[in-house]
Amino acid sequence: MLKSDVGMAKVIIGIVGMPGAGKGVVREVARQHGFPVVVMGDEVRAEAKRRNIEPTPENLGRLMLEIRAEEGLEAIARRCIPKIKMHDASIIVVDGLRSLHEVKEFRKEFPNFKIVAIHASPKTRFRRLLARGRSDDPKDWETFYMRDQRELSVGIGEVIALADYMIVNEGSIDCLKREFEKILEKVMKDE
Amino acid sequence: MLKSDVGMAKVIIGIVGMPGAGKGVVREVARQHGFPVVVMGDEVRAEAKRRNIEPTPENLGRLMLEIRAEEGLEAIARRCIPKIKMHDASIIVVDGLRSLHEVKEFRKEFPNFKIVAIHASPKTRFRRLLARGRSDDPKDWETFYMRDQRELSVGIGEVIALADYMIVNEGSIDCLKREFEKILEKVMKDE
Repeated sequence: MLKSDVGMAKVIIGIVGMPGAGKGVVREVARQHGFPVVVMGDEVRAEAKRRNIEPTPENLGRLMLEIRAEEGLEAIARRCIPKIKMHDASIIVVDGLRSLHEVKEFRKEFPNFKIVAIHASPKTRFRRLLARGRSDDPKDWETFYMRDQRELSVGIGEVIALADYMIVNEGSIDCLKREFEKILEKVMKDE
Repeated sequence: MLKSDVGMAKVIIGIVGMPGAGKGVVREVARQHGFPVVVMGDEVRAEAKRRNIEPTPENLGRLMLEIRAEEGLEAIARRCIPKIKMHDASIIVVDGLRSLHEVKEFRKEFPNFKIVAIHASPKTRFRRLLARGRSDDPKDWETFYMRDQRELSVGIGEVIALADYMIVNEGSIDCLKREFEKILEKVMKDE
């Protein structure tokens, strides 16, 4: 099978969600089902390593903007495409969509590209991030608000608005898992 | 009771959704339950009448951008505030949010302002708009796509991303009605 045919046949699921919406759980479910997961943020971390930059949240955020300024708004997506092509699974999950430029870039290569958005209210997401307490998670509403604004400024809201599937994640982790599994089934049937 | 106290007590539900997502059904449900509905687009139509402009979709679209350029990005919201204050219902629905500037303007006046987003996939919305066939509805994918882009350019995606409640409307009208009624109940309990 030619590379281009592989591209046609593959279903790529692009995950988008605001901080604390539940992307991590969805990544885990995909892996449990044996589907490869390509994390867009890993490209920024790899570039930080190449440039000998310490991978603090601030540095990574700045580097992400630098890469976009140097190579175009779809730069991170373009770097992920060879990784996606390496996998020959029927479904490949790409985590961390942030703009429609990226979606466009992926769809040029993979026509069967579906956007899956995970949504939770700001109140719920804030509560979750406080509970999670990862070093880069906000400790107060002001920091949380600013991080949301940074994500929105890149264009994440537009990707959410045009999602092919929307999961509302206001309940338990098990609910979210089941919802995502339903979408995996739908996506497989569609193709 | 002072005007400002009334503002504090009222719950305002701001509706946001891409074209064809199901905002019309939600407006209808709100009215059936006796809640007043303020339609933001009516402000643009009223202004068109004042300026003797024929209310074609193109003219209204252009006028909306003109009003925003002349009076600021929150202009339409500001014009709705006196109308909202006129009503003394416990819940008032405002339909047609398009940007976070508007949300900010409403929240200054009404702290209990909740964003309710209605989402459907582009495929579903396109099919619905074709079936509806209103004079200003798109007849082909290209026109549909351009209309989506126009909405997104004003900032509607950011409002959807920060919704307090998200309704996924991929099923029947009855499903959507029930989902919105559940949210009305939640909103009433919260306050």
